[in-house]
Amino acid sequence: MATAPSVSYSMTVRLEVPASGTAVSQLTTAVESSGGSVTGLDVTASGHEKLRIDVTIAASSTSHADEIVEGLRDIEGVVLGKVSDRTFLMHLGGKIEMASKHPIRNRDDLSMIYTPGVARVCMAIAENPEDARRLTIKRNTVAVVTDGSAVLGLGNIGPMAAMPVMEGKAALFKRFADIDAWPICLDTQDTDAIVEIVKAIAPGFAGINLEDISAPRCFEIEARLREALDIPVFHDDQHGTAIVVLASLTNALRVVGKGIGDVRVVMSGAGAAGTAILKLLIAAGVKHAVVADIHGVVHAGREDLVSADVDSPLRWIAENTNPESMTGTLKQAVAGADVFIGVSAPNVLDGDDVAAMADGAIVFALANPDPEVDPAIARQTAAVVATGRSDFPNQINNVLVFPGVFRGLLDAQSRTVNTEMMLAAARALADVVAEDELNANYIIPSVFNERVAGAVAGAVRNAAKGAGGAVTGPTSA
Amino acid sequence: MATAPSVSYSMTVRLEVPASGTAVSQLTTAVESSGGSVTGLDVTASGHEKLRIDVTIAASSTSHADEIVEGLRDIEGVVLGKVSDRTFLMHLGGKIEMASKHPIRNRDDLSMIYTPGVARVCMAIAENPEDARRLTIKRNTVAVVTDGSAVLGLGNIGPMAAMPVMEGKAALFKRFADIDAWPICLDTQDTDAIVEIVKAIAPGFAGINLEDISAPRCFEIEARLREALDIPVFHDDQHGTAIVVLASLTNALRVVGKGIGDVRVVMSGAGAAGTAILKLLIAAGVKHAVVADIHGVVHAGREDLVSADVDSPLRWIAENTNPESMTGTLKQAVAGADVFIGVSAPNVLDGDDVAAMADGAIVFALANPDPEVDPAIARQTAAVVATGRSDFPNQINNVLVFPGVFRGLLDAQSRTVNTEMMLAAARALADVVAEDELNANYIIPSVFNERVAGAVAGAVRNAAKGAGGAVTGPTSA
Repeated sequence: MATAPSVSYSMTVRLEVPASGTAVSQLTTAVESSGGSVTGLDVTASGHEKLRIDVTIAASSTSHADEIVEGLRDIEGVVLGKVSDRTFLMHLGGKIEMASKHPIRNRDDLSMIYTPGVARVCMAIAENPEDARRLTIKRNTVAVVTDGSAVLGLGNIGPMAAMPVMEGKAALFKRFADIDAWPICLDTQDTDAIVEIVKAIAPGFAGINLEDISAPRCFEIEARLREALDIPVFHDDQHGTAIVVLASLTNALRVVGKGIGDVRVVMSGAGAAGTAILKLLIAAGVKHAVVADIHGVVHAGREDLVSADVDSPLRWIAENTNPESMTGTLKQAVAGADVFIGVSAPNVLDGDDVAAMADGAIVFALANPDPEVDPAIARQTAAVVATGRSDFPNQINNVLVFPGVFRGLLDAQSRTVNTEMMLAAARALADVVAEDELNANYIIPSVFNERVAGAVAGAVRNAAKGAGGAVTGPTSA
Repeated sequence: MATAPSVSYSMTVRLEVPASGTAVSQLTTAVESSGGSVTGLDVTASGHEKLRIDVTIAASSTSHADEIVEGLRDIEGVVLGKVSDRTFLMHLGGKIEMASKHPIRNRDDLSMIYTPGVARVCMAIAENPEDARRLTIKRNTVAVVTDGSAVLGLGNIGPMAAMPVMEGKAALFKRFADIDAWPICLDTQDTDAIVEIVKAIAPGFAGINLEDISAPRCFEIEARLREALDIPVFHDDQHGTAIVVLASLTNALRVVGKGIGDVRVVMSGAGAAGTAILKLLIAAGVKHAVVADIHGVVHAGREDLVSADVDSPLRWIAENTNPESMTGTLKQAVAGADVFIGVSAPNVLDGDDVAAMADGAIVFALANPDPEVDPAIARQTAAVVATGRSDFPNQINNVLVFPGVFRGLLDAQSRTVNTEMMLAAARALADVVAEDELNANYIIPSVFNERVAGAVAGAVRNAAKGAGGAVTGPTSA
């Protein structure tokens, strides 16, 4: 699976070339012969003898980008200038900022926004705490909380290195759901400390989005915070993923004409995402699930499970899946299965494994950037294939979920988030794909589909109000 | 001291009045005869028989506003509609928001701002943590942290009711110094917990502004955080106040032609602000200071001091002030003094007390909203009078200080804030008032003076770089 040139490895190279001759035309040729792709070419200064040109080039990796630059250096007459990495340029100085909603032009503005006028607003909230959702940013504000222990696929890189992801997440919250999110990157990985800290910072927020916290700590942290707080706590790596997978599976099953209660689902990966997906699928009606991790199929008699804690996630999996008590490897379990869902590691399956699945097989290979099985090969025998990648049909992406889920929770002033709300979100997301649009290459809408966030938000809002989880009491102005 | 109508108690009243007759002209008369002030009158709909008018009125208190509305109700033919409080309208939904610096228009944008492109940026920071100041919002971001224990003069109203102040503070940071600040309102008042929480959230910020935390906890919290963190920690109620007081005193002494080492300073108030002012004044050269609190003049032999902790702030005051070992009351101490600085309670002095001060007396009566002595009465005998109020000359306001101080600290990438930097800030602020502008009614510039923040920032930046407190190491792109 060769990687195509991508904008994520895009650079702008400044060059000086002779005004006459073939140097300019050689540039494009040189880039393309190195396997790169010219996506822009601007002449930024022109003279009788020399041109200054900014060439924007997509490469497929950092080392590939270096190769391309070396190729340009070899063209006769070319003088190489500054090479700017476009992704780094976008991150320079950070990607988000704080903005004031009102101008502060004069003393009158100052005396209403700040002292002395602000004192009356404070006293109104002190007398009626529910007014905080009316008179402060609380109603529309979400904390994006991480300890940097499991950032993307990069592992435990710590809170400071996690910032670019959390800022990006905040930017997505705004873009897709007009939510004000702020990154809170914690310099501790102690479960008790994280719980205490998030409880303490909660007054200024109407929701907590936990992000990139490693398993199994993430389970306990989320459970304890949900118990303690009166605002919803949502670990996106778990539940965002679970919702988008369930929505995708709902539509994939429509494509192949199978019922969710009838299919045998085999999952690879028993981490945070895998466990959450499994729980939501079971809540949605899946009856035959088998989970495999790095030690093979999970069953109650497996050596590491006999000694596991009563409340360990793996123990829960063993007790709630694998009714036939299968043992053995992932590959063995996949044989004859209707659905494969991978949230684990690259290339754990090959084409033969997929070919051995049942007719009308559904394969979700979500490991990133390299899926559990090459999607092109899987598609030779499977009926529906989805990945986490943007360069293949059916991208399963949390961005389809978390903005709408939080929009719905905030609009309902919900104090909690529960399975019913998640099921409603998944149904609404699946239903964004109309009956006449649905096919094996289009089971899930694009993240830029403008109906997605609104549909998910509406479903969650209704479920939250139905669940009685919403804040009640006087909130009118 | 009657309070004048103020925009902080401003409302817009919607009225329907007969189109003919004198009702409209009666409106203004009615408001003014109730002591209010009409600041706007808009006809929002007009017909043959009726006009709809929005009248904006400044009152001097909430109950005064109610009286004025009742007065309008009495005018014949007037139908009273909705009454909107302008201050509350400005706070509705909160005063700040999160904004994205880049548009997210398509998949290319998404893949650079978020996955997969963001992964390379994270790895760059993981490999070189100093890069967080280059590639994230850290460099320009300040946490405004409170526990809601001493909010304005309102007391211990808690974290949620403190939000409007912290949002306002964030808005001022942006307005005056282009800093991105975010409110962190903590649901705990435990010193250890606050220290641990602020330490933990520090990775995403380049500075901590502690706000409205009650004494004596604020001293310990600040000291422990300064020790633990590699970013500056600044309790504005202490040090912002101290800097603006020192700047004002510097210029007031110029007006009366006295030297800072020669004057006898009497302070009323030994809380957070008082202690910080005292320390900075001593650092600036004050040699003769006497502090009084609610129990009278502080001296080493005072009953409550004999049993005080060795490191109690009051003990520090006793050991570093009052070289003549004065005893007695504030009023006794003030007799013959050159400078009075009050950060305590309303009306602790009267005109006779001020008259008993030395020639060329300086009176800073900073209790808010009601000063330690009526400034109009004080001015009858004192040479220079300043207050915290905006309706009297020489308003001593922290807004003159904290934006510039943090701008300087962030620009220098300072790891700390120290007395030298604070002295530099005070000197720079004093020097904004030119020699030919300086007089008894203009010792300190307006908060809207555009040179203030830049002058303070420059002085702090230079002091920070000189102090070697700045971050070193490779930070170029």
